[in-house]
Amino acid sequence: MNANVLQPLLLENASKIVLLVLDGLGDLPDAGHGDRTPLEAARTPNFDALVPRASQGRLVPVAPGITPGSGPGHLGLFGYDPLETPVGRGVLEALGAGIPLQPGDVAARANFCTVDAQGVVTDRRAGRIPSETCTQLVERLKQNAAHFEDVDVVLQAGKGHRFVAVFRGPGLGGDVSDADPHKEGKAIPAAHVLGSGAENEKTARMVNAFVRRAGEVLRDAAPANGVLARGMSARPHLPGYRERFGLRAAAIAAYPMYRGVAQLAGMEVFVPEGETAADAFAAAGARWKDFDFFFLHVKGTDMAGEDGNFDAKVKVVEQVDAALPQLLALQPDVLCVTGDHSTPAPMQGHSWHPVPALLAARTAFADGYPRFHEKAARTGSLGTLASRDLMAVLLAHAGRLDKYGA
Amino acid sequence: MNANVLQPLLLENASKIVLLVLDGLGDLPDAGHGDRTPLEAARTPNFDALVPRASQGRLVPVAPGITPGSGPGHLGLFGYDPLETPVGRGVLEALGAGIPLQPGDVAARANFCTVDAQGVVTDRRAGRIPSETCTQLVERLKQNAAHFEDVDVVLQAGKGHRFVAVFRGPGLGGDVSDADPHKEGKAIPAAHVLGSGAENEKTARMVNAFVRRAGEVLRDAAPANGVLARGMSARPHLPGYRERFGLRAAAIAAYPMYRGVAQLAGMEVFVPEGETAADAFAAAGARWKDFDFFFLHVKGTDMAGEDGNFDAKVKVVEQVDAALPQLLALQPDVLCVTGDHSTPAPMQGHSWHPVPALLAARTAFADGYPRFHEKAARTGSLGTLASRDLMAVLLAHAGRLDKYGA
Repeated sequence: MNANVLQPLLLENASKIVLLVLDGLGDLPDAGHGDRTPLEAARTPNFDALVPRASQGRLVPVAPGITPGSGPGHLGLFGYDPLETPVGRGVLEALGAGIPLQPGDVAARANFCTVDAQGVVTDRRAGRIPSETCTQLVERLKQNAAHFEDVDVVLQAGKGHRFVAVFRGPGLGGDVSDADPHKEGKAIPAAHVLGSGAENEKTARMVNAFVRRAGEVLRDAAPANGVLARGMSARPHLPGYRERFGLRAAAIAAYPMYRGVAQLAGMEVFVPEGETAADAFAAAGARWKDFDFFFLHVKGTDMAGEDGNFDAKVKVVEQVDAALPQLLALQPDVLCVTGDHSTPAPMQGHSWHPVPALLAARTAFADGYPRFHEKAARTGSLGTLASRDLMAVLLAHAGRLDKYGA
Repeated sequence: MNANVLQPLLLENASKIVLLVLDGLGDLPDAGHGDRTPLEAARTPNFDALVPRASQGRLVPVAPGITPGSGPGHLGLFGYDPLETPVGRGVLEALGAGIPLQPGDVAARANFCTVDAQGVVTDRRAGRIPSETCTQLVERLKQNAAHFEDVDVVLQAGKGHRFVAVFRGPGLGGDVSDADPHKEGKAIPAAHVLGSGAENEKTARMVNAFVRRAGEVLRDAAPANGVLARGMSARPHLPGYRERFGLRAAAIAAYPMYRGVAQLAGMEVFVPEGETAADAFAAAGARWKDFDFFFLHVKGTDMAGEDGNFDAKVKVVEQVDAALPQLLALQPDVLCVTGDHSTPAPMQGHSWHPVPALLAARTAFADGYPRFHEKAARTGSLGTLASRDLMAVLLAHAGRLDKYGA
């Protein structure tokens, strides 16, 4: 549904909405654990007290069969259609690196590589140099390859051979090709304009100047004597929470990527003291009066899923449950607990499976189910929704949407 | 789904389809009534006999989280996308007042107000004059402010300070601003063209002439010495049931609003003898041979919900059930029982919750459930559909849709 439908219906009130995202929450029944999912196997007395009068359902983050990355997964929860809201690879990488992006910035994923005397790329990963070397080399680039014409290049080292480059200056576009041959045995191609327009031409010129200059600066640094840049993309201009939903929105997330995506969506972002749900709840409590909407992000479920660690995922869910009374004490009017996607432990990665969602509110249909998990969620009264439609449902339960038509 | 998909597939046969709408049917489990909904609590032996071999499911009238007014709620059931089928406030008000709208009509919601000597609105509701006074004043306007240039103003008194004004004449458009300051302490603004075009200019001129003339006519009638007009809208031209679905459609509804929306959808409308389901069924029986499709509207469920009266809603459902044999005796080929939206008694108003639907037909998947209610409907074989997709399903079960493609 188009956000333009909601705008004329928005009502103001004093309600508080909490969207608690357990990253990668959805999972699969595990034969080794009595055919239960981690959510099913977890001991969750506090959830269990809430569940019978709450509604359950499932969210499809992008589209059936589509496995979302963290960016699209969260964009859906924030009410955007991820298929219609392109956020470039470079932008996501920069957000994940904790670089606050400004309007007009163009971000690139970059890495060190090895080139031979003829300029042919012989190793796209520069012999997988250690992260410390990466940091040292990025420092060298900061000194000698961080300014071209009226454009600054903001650099930040990543893991191994990877780093992020953000081009900041007037008149830059995000529609240029990669300065990356994508295979060994070829020279580094110049970035060229994909769309058209002077803005993209300028970006291509800047990227090429940076790659060339970096090659000069790193001449003696083999195996890391060249750089590649790809996924160039401009920070998108997304209409934000205030504008679309009439909400003062706060994001509380320990990891920069999630704060970054939330910031793109117009939320004010905060770093909790630690990574646990208890930390997130404490941070929310400290800012309770100043916001209408709280996006709280817990990373542990996804990490356990990525590790294929069923028991670790169970443990994170149990930690969230143990901390839950702290959140409930704030008396949110609407509480939704869900994930940005599934990360089934047996798959050790993100998946396309619909994500269970729990909604507690005075106006929630009391499903009467004893527990919250994937199997109950299949038949819950929320049904199976596109993630992007969740925000309208949360606004409705918060009494923040007027009737449509007479 | 676009109605253009259906048209080439339409087949003719002698089947009869009944769409029985219990207005505001959907509800919430009530803790004070054993966590049952009114539909669940009602004694419904006749439905219960039908249900095991019928299919259940749920309808989303407009979109997730969106609470529909009666207009959009019914437009969805009639196969239109309510978000793509704007029916203006004035048009709905006129339909609700029982004014048969003609093509080209522009309708406005109007009301009496109090203005001071400087023309400033001091009370937008004219001291909430009684309905009898409203009727008298509207009579005065009918005598003295009902014709401008080649345009007639059709007036009808409503409740309290409210009335409806329909502008009828050649070349009128519906895209003009309100002649209503929307708050006290300001003068009545002139209506002005919102879009463009001579048709809208003419409507603005007529509205302003009417408001000005009414002010003269009512000079001595304080506190009702002025009028406001808002929600001006043209009767939409909707492709009708015959054209879209190949159906001769009859609407039987005691309340003018529902007959009005049905008329917009190309149905022939009839007034039953009374407000009960039995009255609607009798009216359908009397016209059984002349139509292929019957929209039967029962208002009582919505009224009970609006009143927050659980027991009254139960009673209306039981009355429908008691009368059901009368409808079944007509042997409809396809019978669908649903609502235009939910009106949960605890909310005392319309809501966004999906509406349970029951479908009885020879080709219905026999769900095998013992009873029809919100909880069974969650897992029924119809699934959760957009209301606008229901008509295709009814046509299919009536054998009126050919195969799509070879």
